[in-house]
This record gives sequence, structure tokens and C-alpha cells, in this order.
Amino acid sequence: MRSSHGAAHLKNQFASDNYAGICPEAWQAMAEANQGFANAYGEDRWTARACDLLRDFFETDCQVYFVFNGTAGNSLALASLCNSYHSVICHEIAHVETDECGAAEFFSNGTKILLVPGENGKIDLDAVAHTVTRRADIHYPKPKVLSITQATELGTVYSPSELQAIGACAHEFGMRLHMDGARLGNALAHLDRTPADLTWRAGVDVLTLGGTKNGMAVGEAVVFFDPALAEEFDYRCKQAGQLASKMRFLAAPWIGMLESGAYLRNAAHANRCAALLEERLRQIPGIDICYPRQANAVFVSLPPRVSQELERRGWRFYTFIGLGQARFMCSWQTCEADIDALAAEIRSLSTEA
Amino acid sequence: MRSSHGAAHLKNQFASDNYAGICPEAWQAMAEANQGFANAYGEDRWTARACDLLRDFFETDCQVYFVFNGTAGNSLALASLCNSYHSVICHEIAHVETDECGAAEFFSNGTKILLVPGENGKIDLDAVAHTVTRRADIHYPKPKVLSITQATELGTVYSPSELQAIGACAHEFGMRLHMDGARLGNALAHLDRTPADLTWRAGVDVLTLGGTKNGMAVGEAVVFFDPALAEEFDYRCKQAGQLASKMRFLAAPWIGMLESGAYLRNAAHANRCAALLEERLRQIPGIDICYPRQANAVFVSLPPRVSQELERRGWRFYTFIGLGQARFMCSWQTCEADIDALAAEIRSLSTEA
Amino acid sequence: MRSSHGAAHLKNQFASDNYAGICPEAWQAMAEANQGFANAYGEDRWTARACDLLRDFFETDCQVYFVFNGTAGNSLALASLCNSYHSVICHEIAHVETDECGAAEFFSNGTKILLVPGENGKIDLDAVAHTVTRRADIHYPKPKVLSITQATELGTVYSPSELQAIGACAHEFGMRLHMDGARLGNALAHLDRTPADLTWRAGVDVLTLGGTKNGMAVGEAVVFFDPALAEEFDYRCKQAGQLASKMRFLAAPWIGMLESGAYLRNAAHANRCAALLEERLRQIPGIDICYPRQANAVFVSLPPRVSQELERRGWRFYTFIGLGQARFMCSWQTCEADIDALAAEIRSLSTEA
Amino acid sequence: MRSSHGAAHLKNQFASDNYAGICPEAWQAMAEANQGFANAYGEDRWTARACDLLRDFFETDCQVYFVFNGTAGNSLALASLCNSYHSVICHEIAHVETDECGAAEFFSNGTKILLVPGENGKIDLDAVAHTVTRRADIHYPKPKVLSITQATELGTVYSPSELQAIGACAHEFGMRLHMDGARLGNALAHLDRTPADLTWRAGVDVLTLGGTKNGMAVGEAVVFFDPALAEEFDYRCKQAGQLASKMRFLAAPWIGMLESGAYLRNAAHANRCAALLEERLRQIPGIDICYPRQANAVFVSLPPRVSQELERRGWRFYTFIGLGQARFMCSWQTCEADIDALAAEIRSLSTEA
Repeated sequence: MRSSHGAAHLKNQFASDNYAGICPEAWQAMAEANQGFANAYGEDRWTARACDLLRDFFETDCQVYFVFNGTAGNSLALASLCNSYHSVICHEIAHVETDECGAAEFFSNGTKILLVPGENGKIDLDAVAHTVTRRADIHYPKPKVLSITQATELGTVYSPSELQAIGACAHEFGMRLHMDGARLGNALAHLDRTPADLTWRAGVDVLTLGGTKNGMAVGEAVVFFDPALAEEFDYRCKQAGQLASKMRFLAAPWIGMLESGAYLRNAAHANRCAALLEERLRQIPGIDICYPRQANAVFVSLPPRVSQELERRGWRFYTFIGLGQARFMCSWQTCEADIDALAAEIRSLSTEA
Repeated sequence: MRSSHGAAHLKNQFASDNYAGICPEAWQAMAEANQGFANAYGEDRWTARACDLLRDFFETDCQVYFVFNGTAGNSLALASLCNSYHSVICHEIAHVETDECGAAEFFSNGTKILLVPGENGKIDLDAVAHTVTRRADIHYPKPKVLSITQATELGTVYSPSELQAIGACAHEFGMRLHMDGARLGNALAHLDRTPADLTWRAGVDVLTLGGTKNGMAVGEAVVFFDPALAEEFDYRCKQAGQLASKMRFLAAPWIGMLESGAYLRNAAHANRCAALLEERLRQIPGIDICYPRQANAVFVSLPPRVSQELERRGWRFYTFIGLGQARFMCSWQTCEADIDALAAEIRSLSTEA
Repeated sequence: MRSSHGAAHLKNQFASDNYAGICPEAWQAMAEANQGFANAYGEDRWTARACDLLRDFFETDCQVYFVFNGTAGNSLALASLCNSYHSVICHEIAHVETDECGAAEFFSNGTKILLVPGENGKIDLDAVAHTVTRRADIHYPKPKVLSITQATELGTVYSPSELQAIGACAHEFGMRLHMDGARLGNALAHLDRTPADLTWRAGVDVLTLGGTKNGMAVGEAVVFFDPALAEEFDYRCKQAGQLASKMRFLAAPWIGMLESGAYLRNAAHANRCAALLEERLRQIPGIDICYPRQANAVFVSLPPRVSQELERRGWRFYTFIGLGQARFMCSWQTCEADIDALAAEIRSLSTEA
Repeated sequence: MRSSHGAAHLKNQFASDNYAGICPEAWQAMAEANQGFANAYGEDRWTARACDLLRDFFETDCQVYFVFNGTAGNSLALASLCNSYHSVICHEIAHVETDECGAAEFFSNGTKILLVPGENGKIDLDAVAHTVTRRADIHYPKPKVLSITQATELGTVYSPSELQAIGACAHEFGMRLHMDGARLGNALAHLDRTPADLTWRAGVDVLTLGGTKNGMAVGEAVVFFDPALAEEFDYRCKQAGQLASKMRFLAAPWIGMLESGAYLRNAAHANRCAALLEERLRQIPGIDICYPRQANAVFVSLPPRVSQELERRGWRFYTFIGLGQARFMCSWQTCEADIDALAAEIRSLSTEA
């Protein structure tokens, strides 16, 4: 693990894995791509190479598009799968619902997001079935896409068999399956299964694959496992302001991270950091871990006094469902000393009481 | 001027200024921003600093937002100025009309683009007046925004007095004035006037300010000179997939380029290269320069045989209005030897005939 | 009360009040308007007269627009009050949520509908306050409109004091108040208060006023009590395909029904029919009335066997929350004999068991 | 021909054929449909019957939907044929371009309308070919639909062979062919060919068929000749506020007019009136007929003084391309005496000079 950062950086990093910077492998690849001139709009050799590497990664001839961020990646993917009078079913705390400011509705010109509950951030398939079947009239948007997040927003990971069941459910009801893989790397690292197993072999039709949270500056990949669904997706990206002119700088980091193995290594590192933090926190009386910690997030139930005092002392983290539940995210850049410092502070505040 | 590039890079660069890479000043600033953790979504010190520098640059307390590319910057700016039943007036070869795949219409949910002609790529104000006044009924979209490009798509530059007249015309008809400043730097370098003179002092309400074509990897700034117009623009960006999580990497290059003076220096360099190319080409019999060369583009009328043979030999450039007219763009990265090589090739092909 | 209809018509009418036809007063007004030629698009004397009569009806100088149906009226009204990145708060069974197929999202290009619960179909203001205040970041659509239905979808009616509280709540949070008044007539008839009291005096900014369900062929009115909000609403209607060319036929029925008093009389009749049906059903053992019956709907809890058998025998009605709850709507055209027949059938089926 | 109307009605009727009222056959059908209760949203017998009659009319098993007006009919038809990043090609004075306030762009969320010229209001196929082929890159919307108006906005009529050529052209370029048939009846009456010949047999994929201008109160039909294109069109109508609850009143007039023959008879009458007006005007020195008069419009070149004085005396008509060109529309309700009065007034004003 890397050594500690200066105090200035120490305390805000757990707010999100996008507080981290650009990892060395991505940086180096950008530097290499920054040699002279290159054709714009993706007609360059870095883009071609990055697409090929992702096809290797997924062991299939998928269609790959690089866009600027996850909100756009998810929204464009969903828009390509449905019309304005359709609906998308997702978990009630899915990122597309809670953190994209209605982007899915905007890109699709009104598509409705239908929410279903589910334990540990995982979609409940009975609830999905109920949502699909309770209405079959034209007065309500027709479900057309099932969207899941892997790893989930609560730091849990769908198992391969859970994914198989989800894929089967979606297709049984005539829906397409979209996966928000902003943290698919973390799920891969946790499960030790191939990318193919966790995506198209389980029925995923379209994937938004995260790069930013795993060490890049900017950029996600939209991956179509069914090439027919990718028809004219390039036009869609262009019109929506998601076609980079200097595409090589979005594509090159993928080369750097896939060729070097950093894509999975970074994610595994973040997971390990979260595991370490979980371990430390479990030893503190009065602190409860909220969900099975599988990826790079630790959700803990903190006494309100502890939570408030942590914030007052400059630690930055998200609180959910009131003051009591705090989320600590680890990233490729988190180091053991930071975790120790956080755990020590929480321990100190907890035992003071 | 910089020394020549390898032959591999030589011949495609004139296609567009976005074929160039990241300039050293932008790169260095990104490297400096890539130190440890930073708050996401623009709550970091680089973003604050870049906004302040742009306020200094424009000598006014403007509102600044960083987005991923020019298509999005233009479209979001226009969407913030009009409703779906309004129209935007622009030159018939404006980038928002010819090269953004209906993005303005998409972001504004149907706003119509009304085209007016004008010599040398500059909007004709009589034609604007005619377009605004010929209809005043609810069966046709109501003109609400006048959008101009500075420097224009034909490499010409509006003079300060032309801008004043445009601003007066727009406001007289109750329209807002938007400037697509993808190459405002080149116009500034050509005119030797302050950014304030060429924008808000001439009546520009909202500006899309280019970064990418002038040496950055990705990213443009949307600048509101009337703060009231910027209300909730942050929400608009977020919903449209244009809020970068690691915003520091969009903001830092602005710091590097503004503090170092590279923003204007790069543009001036590109203009000088274009001037040099123009000078070389003017000496070749049978080659005509099409428009007043003021910014970093040279439009030339080439004999069809010359144009075809140039392409066959690997030179890349855009052709307009049939085979005869070719556009050669220079960038911050163009060097004299490249220009010499291009001019020599054209001379050789022309005299062969 | 009118006499019975033929058997063919008897059994489907309770499904909805839009199964009824055109009432005589509306029909007569259309006939009178169908004399010779008239200016199109609302520049005719019937439209002017209908607007004036609605201004008299509401005792204020409101802006009035006639559109084709309630879905469009609601959606256009909401679109005029918010942008795509805003949200609209309504009851979880509000018509705009459950029965307009995402029209609000479509017309507003992505505006999110946020749902709150509330007893008897009435919005819970604590839940509204919670929904407005739980998020204040740009990652989630900003609440901008509170939309209520009067009478509600469950046949209940907001009292004047409830409306006052709702108006105060909406405005306190910087939201506009929209009222879906598809059945405002029924609410007026129930409360015996003036239209002004139930709308703008209680804080309603924009009202969609129902005509179709109360006896017209087609057409609702959108009423702006704050004229500033109506700015360019005529353009919005035109672009959205909601400007009738032969507007006189949308406007004239309002003249006929307002001048003759049929607008309130029809609604009062429908309410009385529902009251009578309620009275009859209360006398049947095993049948429960679900909500306070105030307008023209009776919701009853039927044993599944009764419900199924009723349907098998040709009665048509909506079921909610599973088989057990049935909605019977009365209209201006319902007559006592029909109610007797329905009540007798239910009594017969219930006592058979 | 019918006898003269009162003076009050006389002078505004020529402005448009939608200044006319409801014809007796449509009115009678509405009266018959207004018997008791009927299922809502098109599940009634009048809707079923009207659809069947239109299938008979077109001699094919087409899919039929009734919507409120022509703007919506055209926009929904186009939206069903293209995505937001596509474009629709039409004549530069097509109604979808000039008189629908950006509705096509709104319903399709940004689809661009590309304009081509053409004599006498008819699209020029060479210009279409040029428009389709001049760009093939993702920076410009991809042409997907060719839309024509029959009869045209200039009162001319495409011949069957012209339609065949248009259909072949559209399909050759991979486009769908849409026909705005707001006045298809007038074209049918002029050509004496079957509806099938002028639509699907010529390659029309989707037709918007006018009812309003030909004698109905409200309502047009969208007719899909390729049933696959109609998939989920009912959802599209519902979401866009174009599903009438009391559908019988939109459907019944079609029954009345098709069964009685009034649909063609009305159109033929309007055409004859226009022919008569043309004949009268041709006899006046200094008055020129502008285009071949084939349907129910007469375009004349009037001396400015005559035009102005006509308006001053209360005649209402549209002027195009400046003061000199006036459009006089005839309708099912126009009568010979009205034409005589108009012609006499023009003659009197012309000879005064």
C-alpha cells in the first residue's frame, strides 16, 4: 500500500472515490498519446487500440464508445434502449435515480424511472415482476429496460447467479438489461470472475463502464454486447455533446490501465482498503457495519455525536438515511495510514462518550 | 516557432486545430492539480482559481462554468436563453448549425435554428432584421437569441464596431446575444483588443469560450456576463451530463494557460502560422485565397487536380463548396517547417500542371 | 333525475365519468357556434366570450387557454412552471403520475415527478416538506411545483382551509401551486364555495379546469391566475399540438355550460348520484365504503367473488389495489334507475354468498 | 352550390378553409354518437367503425389513429419515423416548417427539418438527392424521412407519377415517406384517382389525413400503411396529450363523411369554388394567377393598392412573399355568391386605378 498523504488531503478523500486523482498508469498513457497530431473524433490509433483492448477484456466483439462521464454514459445507454413513453426499472437508490438530476428523463425526453426496493442495494426481482405486470395499459409508461448497478450504491456486489437471475427476469418480460458499471472493477476484484461472466454471459445488453472513479481524469465507456443496439449510437453521442474532439485523451487511459493491469489492480486496492477500514471499525464498540462490505465502500452506523464531531474536525463523508449512517469510500489512492487515522479518530470519539 | 514534427504527424494536422495535442502549459497545470485528493464537482481550489482568472481576464464579475466540449457549451448556453418554441438566429455556416448534429435543438427540446446569410462568414444584420420581423404570429418560433461565432467559421474576425452593431441589433429586437468563442483567442490575437471589448462591452450576454482547440485536452467555459441568466445553470449542466466529477482537470488547464499567457500566445502563434501559409500560397500562380485571412484558417481555391493529388499524398484538410475550396487550419502546435512542406507540395503540384 | 337508459348503456357507465356523452347545454352551444364562418385559432367571438365568462366565474382577470384534453392541460401548465431539471411534487396516486403515461415528463423534457403519500388521496404536507428539504444539491431535480387534484382521484375534496395550508406550504418553499381541476366542478358542488375561494384565493397559481368529464365533447381550460406566468403560453400550446384551428367548438361549450349554470348543475347531479349509490351500498352487509364520499366517485371494498361476478355480468368499473376495491363513477348523465340497478345487482351477489 | 351567407360571414372566409364550420354530415354523425354512454379512449364502436371505413377507403389493412389536429398528427407521425439525431426533408414552404411552430422538432426532441426548394410548392427531387448525399458524417443529422404535402401549400397537386418518383427517391435513400394530407381530399377530387393510388401504392409509409379543413370540428387521422411502423403509436399519442377520452366524437364524423360520400364531395365542392374564383379573376386585367390552380386555393398577384384596399374593406386573406401575392381559400361551405362578391370587389378596385 502507498504511504500516507499530507494532512491537507487526508480528511476529505473518504467522501467519494472521485476525490482521488489520476493514477500513474492513466497519466502515463495520456502523456504518450500527447505526441504530435492525431485525427479528431475517435479516428485515431489510441481509440482503436482502446476499443480492441476492451473487446479482449470482455472476450467478445462488443461495440465501444467513450463518453465524458457516468451520467451521460448511463443516460445515453438508456435512451438507446427506450422511447419517451417507456419506463426504466431500477433500485430505489440507483445512481440514475438519486444522483443524476433527471438526466435519464432528459436524454430520453421523458422516460419514467420506476423504483423497486431490495435489500442491501440489490434489486428485488419479485418487486420487478410486480412493477412490470401491475399495469398493461397505455396510460402508464411501458417497462422496457431493467437497470442495475454493479457494484451497488451500498457497496455490495451481485453474485454471478444473482446476475443470471436478473438477466433471465429482464428478458422474460421483454426488457433489455443495462448495467451501470461505474464500479464494475470493484465487483470484478471482489468476485474473481471474468468480465464476460459478469456482463454479457449473464444477459447484460449494454454496460456503462466506469473509468473516472478507478483512476482516470474523465471518461467512461459505453459497451454494447448486442451490436444491433449500437446502431447510430455515434450520432446520439454527437448530438448530446458527448463526442470528444481530442478523443485520444479519453481513450489512451484505458490502454494504459488495461495493458498494465491497473484497472483491476486499482479496484482491488480500493476494496482492500475498505476491508481494512471495516476491520478497524468492527473493533470499536457502538459502531455497526450496515451492509455486507464487498466493494470499496463501508457504510457504518455512527452515534450522531460522533458523526457530527467527525465533520466538525474536517472529515468529509456522505450521510444517508439521517445522521446515523455514514459512507466511507476508498479509492486507488487511499493508503493505509489514512485509514488508520480515520479509524483512530472514530475510535477516539466513540470512547470519549 | 517550434521545429518540425516527424513526417507521420506532418500531413494530417491542417485538417483542424483539434488535431493538435495538449500544450505544455495546460499539461503542467494538470500535473500540478494531480496531487492527492480534491473535492469533486467543482468544489475544489483549482476550479475557484480558474473562475477568478477568467473574471480577471474579462474584467468583470461574470459567472463561469466548465463543460466538456463546445457542442455542449453552445447548446447549454442557448438552452438557458430560450424555450422550445423560440428560435435562434445564426449564420448559415455557423458551427451550431452545420457541425453539432442538431445539439441545439436537442438540448432545447426543439428550438429552431434560423439561418441568415452574410459575406465572409459574418452575419448580415439586414437579413437578421428581416428574419426577426417577417413573422410575428404564434405559428412560427419566436426569435429569442442571436448567435455569432468569433472568429468565424471562415477564419474571419468581427471588428469591435461590427460587434457593437450586432449587440445593438440583438437587443433592439429583444434578443439575447450568444457568442460561440471556440476560437475567441484567435480573434483576440488578431485584433489586439481586450476580452471585455470583444464580449460584454459589445453586448454579448453569454459566451462559450474555447479551450480544446487552443491547447487543452478537453473542456470549454460557458461565461455569463449577466449573472441573472446563469440562474440554475449548474442544474442544467448536471442534468445534461456536463458536470465533471474530477472538475479540477477541466479547470486547471485554464489556470496554466491564463497565468502563463499561453492562452493568447498559442492563438497568436496559430494566427502567425496561418499568415505565413497565406503568404506562401499567394506566391503560387493559380491559387486563390478565398476570404480575408484574419485568424488561424486559410481557405484556398485549389484546382481540382491539385486538391485530389494532395489528398492522395496523405494531406488531410476539409473541402467546402465542392472540391475547389480547401481549408487549412493552423494550431498552437503547427511549426514553420510543416507550413513550408505543405506550401512546397502545393507549389509543386500546381506548377506540374 | 333523468330516467333510465337502455340496457346496452346501463352497465359500462360507472367505469368513468368520461363514458358519458355531451350534455344538452354544451351541444346546443356548439350548434349555435356552427353558424357560417369564424376566424380560426381563437380569434373568434365565442372564444372571447368563453374567456370572459371564466373570468367572471373566477372573479378575477385570469388568462384562459383552451386545450384538447386534461393530459395536455396538466402537462402544458406544469411545463410553463418549471424547467427540465426541476421536479413536481404530487400525491402518489395523482392523475399526472398514474394516468398520463409520462406526459408531464415529456412536455417538460425530463422534469421528475416526486411522489408523496397522504390519506384519502390528499397530499400530506409534512411529506411535502420532507421531500422539498431532504435534498438541496444539484444532483437531484429541484422541486418547483406542487400539484394537487381537486376533487382528488379518490373522490374526496380538499376543504378551503386545507387548500389554504397547501398554498402557504407551496409558496413558503418557493414552489408554484398547480391544481388539476378535471373535477373541480364536483368539488365546488360539494363545498358550496366560490371558484375564487377554491383556487387563487387559496394560492393556486395555475389551474387545469375540466370540461370533458362534466359534459363536453372535448376540451379543458388552462387558467393562469398570475398573468406573468402565462407569458408565451400561446406559443407553447401551438408547438405542442394543442391549438385548435376551429377553436369556437372548444370554446362554445363553456359558454353554454357557464351561462346556463349546467357546469355546476351537472357536477352537483353527479355528486348526488354518487351519494345515492353510497347510501344504497352502505345498506348491504359485507360492503364497505373506502373513503369519505364527497365528489362523484364511490370506492367500495367488494368481496372478490362479487367483484368478479359483477364484471362477468357486464358491469364495467376500475379496480384499485387488487380485486377488492372497486371505483364507481357517476356523471351528469347517470340516472337513478341505473344506480338502483347497480345497487340491486351488488346486493343480490352479496347475499347469494 | 349553396346560397349566400349573411354579410357578416362573407368576407373573412377566404382566409382559410378552417374558417368554415362543421358540415351537416359530420354534425349528424356526432349527434348519433351522442346517445348514452360509450367506452372511453377509443374502445367504442364508432372508433372501430371509422377505422374500418378508412381501411375500406384505402383498400388496405392500415393502422388508423385519431388525433386532435394536424400539427399533432404530422409531428407524431414524424416522431414515430425518426430519432432526435435524424432529419426530415421537406419543401421550404411545407406546413411542418412554416406553420407548426417547431412542433416536429419538439415532438421528436430535436429532429432537424431540412428544406429543399421546388417549383409550385412541389419538392424538387434533385435537391432532395443533393441534401441527402452532401453530408454523410455524424456531425450533421441523418436524413430519415421525406415529407410531402398533398395538395401542396400552394394549391397544386402532385400527379400519380410524381408521387411514384417521390416514393422511389425516398426509399432509394433509405428514407420513409410521410404525406401531410391535410387536404388530401382536395387532391383526390382533382385527380379522380383512388386514395390507394395516391398513397401506399405510390410509396407513402405514413399519412396524416385531414378532417378539420374538410368539414369536421376537430380531428385528423394518422394512417400507417406499414403496420410495423405503428408499433406502440398508441403510447406515443397518449403521452403527447393526443388520446381523446371521448374518442367517439373524433371518430364519428369520419363515419358520417365517408359513408355519405361527403368527404370527397366537400373537397370537390371547394375545388370547384376555387376554379370558379380563378375563372372570374382571370378576366380582370392586371390580376395574375400565380400557380396552377388545382385544389381549393387561388393565389393571385394583386396590385398593392388593391390588396390593401381589400383588407381595409374587411376581406381577410393571407399574403405571401410581400404584399403582392394573396391566397384565397375555398371550403365546403363557400358558395357561389360569396365568390361573385369577392371577384366583383377585386374587379371594381382594379379598374378604379
